[in-house]
Amino acid sequence: VDKTHEQKALARQQQLTKPPGSLGQLENLAVKIASLQASEIPDLTHVHITVYAADHGVMAEGVSAFPQSVTAAMIRNFASGGAAINVLAQELTAKLDVINVGTVDTLEDIPGVLDKRIDAGTANFCDGPAMTEHQCQQAILIGRDNVLSDIENTQLYIAGEMGIGNTSTATALASAILKCDPADLVGPGTGLDLQSIQHKLTVIQRALKLHADKLEGDILTLLQSLGGFEIAAMVGAYLSCAKQGVPVLIDGFISTTAALTAEKIQPGCKNWFIYSHQSAEPGHKVVLDALDAKPLLKLDMRLGEGSGAAVAVPLLRQACLLHNGMATFEQANISKGDK
Amino acid sequence: VDKTHEQKALARQQQLTKPPGSLGQLENLAVKIASLQASEIPDLTHVHITVYAADHGVMAEGVSAFPQSVTAAMIRNFASGGAAINVLAQELTAKLDVINVGTVDTLEDIPGVLDKRIDAGTANFCDGPAMTEHQCQQAILIGRDNVLSDIENTQLYIAGEMGIGNTSTATALASAILKCDPADLVGPGTGLDLQSIQHKLTVIQRALKLHADKLEGDILTLLQSLGGFEIAAMVGAYLSCAKQGVPVLIDGFISTTAALTAEKIQPGCKNWFIYSHQSAEPGHKVVLDALDAKPLLKLDMRLGEGSGAAVAVPLLRQACLLHNGMATFEQANISKGDK
Repeated sequence: VDKTHEQKALARQQQLTKPPGSLGQLENLAVKIASLQASEIPDLTHVHITVYAADHGVMAEGVSAFPQSVTAAMIRNFASGGAAINVLAQELTAKLDVINVGTVDTLEDIPGVLDKRIDAGTANFCDGPAMTEHQCQQAILIGRDNVLSDIENTQLYIAGEMGIGNTSTATALASAILKCDPADLVGPGTGLDLQSIQHKLTVIQRALKLHADKLEGDILTLLQSLGGFEIAAMVGAYLSCAKQGVPVLIDGFISTTAALTAEKIQPGCKNWFIYSHQSAEPGHKVVLDALDAKPLLKLDMRLGEGSGAAVAVPLLRQACLLHNGMATFEQANISKGDK
Repeated sequence: VDKTHEQKALARQQQLTKPPGSLGQLENLAVKIASLQASEIPDLTHVHITVYAADHGVMAEGVSAFPQSVTAAMIRNFASGGAAINVLAQELTAKLDVINVGTVDTLEDIPGVLDKRIDAGTANFCDGPAMTEHQCQQAILIGRDNVLSDIENTQLYIAGEMGIGNTSTATALASAILKCDPADLVGPGTGLDLQSIQHKLTVIQRALKLHADKLEGDILTLLQSLGGFEIAAMVGAYLSCAKQGVPVLIDGFISTTAALTAEKIQPGCKNWFIYSHQSAEPGHKVVLDALDAKPLLKLDMRLGEGSGAAVAVPLLRQACLLHNGMATFEQANISKGDK
């Protein structure tokens, strides 16, 4: 993060033809992006969105309103352009990658989908670790490699996810990392009723009990024990973005849990994060608070796929355009006010 | 508002490839726009933004951090493309009109500015009515005529305003309409310190006392007594949009006060309103609450010019695009879930 460009951007915001501060968070965004890009002309033309999809062993416990086959079906939907993230990415003229990190079933060769399937879903973390150490590393490298694959063209990176059952996974992982009660995070996910949420909580509590001996250990072990392939891949992507100096726009509960995991693995990498929205899933606020995050939007979204982040991209672009394109008081020959 | 298209749009949202409700307020927006446009394919390609600028007699009491000459200077800035709303309108490929409804000084002929100057600013409402009845009608007609001027091409209308001193005017008018204490609404405007806000409040209290006999009278008389030319013009524009069936995206405190005035004049016209944001000016929340409005954004903006509404346009467009462009469960051959 470049302090010189931060100061320059702050100074410019004071000179633009508006009362100082009157563009609110758009001013902070412009200054942040200018400092992250070390540029006087912050620019987010080129956005790279990647959806990581995988299945979850904890689905054996019956924790979702949707059957597990939907993960694969949605991968096909991404490939044919019918999902929300397709519509949004097209409007943003963003590069959209779809990566199968580990569906239960082997899928046919699907044009537009990168087949990086690690295994037939993770193992059920109620019975043992979700991943082997090697699998967790594989997933992290998949995320890293995706960031690197188009790094020269990427001005903003968004990681999205798809995986039936993954709010259970994120709730377990975030509760373990934050050492908090999963009852404070658990929620309906794609649409569970109250009774089913209670069951989901019981399942997560069992998992946390089984892995209790790892709660004081390192974060990678927690990720391996309670995470998912797509979550580990996002962690790898975020770590890589921070290392390479690429701003990241964080999406919803699952993505933010991956962001929290990355920050715990490599403290300071959150300097590269911008938080797009607060989702309707109750755990999201808890994880955002743990990152001191102030998300831009609160639209009760809870879809995943990177959709909340994609919806926020125009705000970031507008912040940059205003920063770059407005006249200064001097240019417009306007008095700056006296108070 | 078309109930048939509302029902069709609601039904379609249930069939799109996402958990029902998971696009949150974007779903409500798509349904609302579909019903307002009576269309199965809601579309907001053509946006008409008009900035109404005028001066305020109450400036004689010293109620702003900026000198009154800034109103005219900003009109020139709008004309030369240097203001925030210029940058945003260009990005949105929106039609942008700038109308001088009544600056203190006669301005030179400025290309791109419609000169509809009613008078050399309003009168000081601490001494008498801000406008004559005729002037108030003139202003209302200016707004109406602007809406009608491009009605065939307008899918969404935004009224913005510029007028040094107009948070004082809006605070006085909204307090009178809502019969509430101006202390609950008054704020820093473009950037007053606490002592100056206290002075501003005293000025507004004097005005409300002077016009106390009109508080039980009709809304047009309140608008004439305590309003501004640009506020009355916005009232006229909103009334016209509702009559003509054009959705309106409401901006900040001044614009929402005009929207409240329009709703009081013609109950039900608020059905055509969508609320873009909640500004940092404290009175905005009070006026929004009086309209039962749930604004989309809360970014601490307080600039006016229609800028907050312009910033929200991409959200509305994304809502429409998602509604129109996503695949249905049937098209994608996906199970809809069982709970």
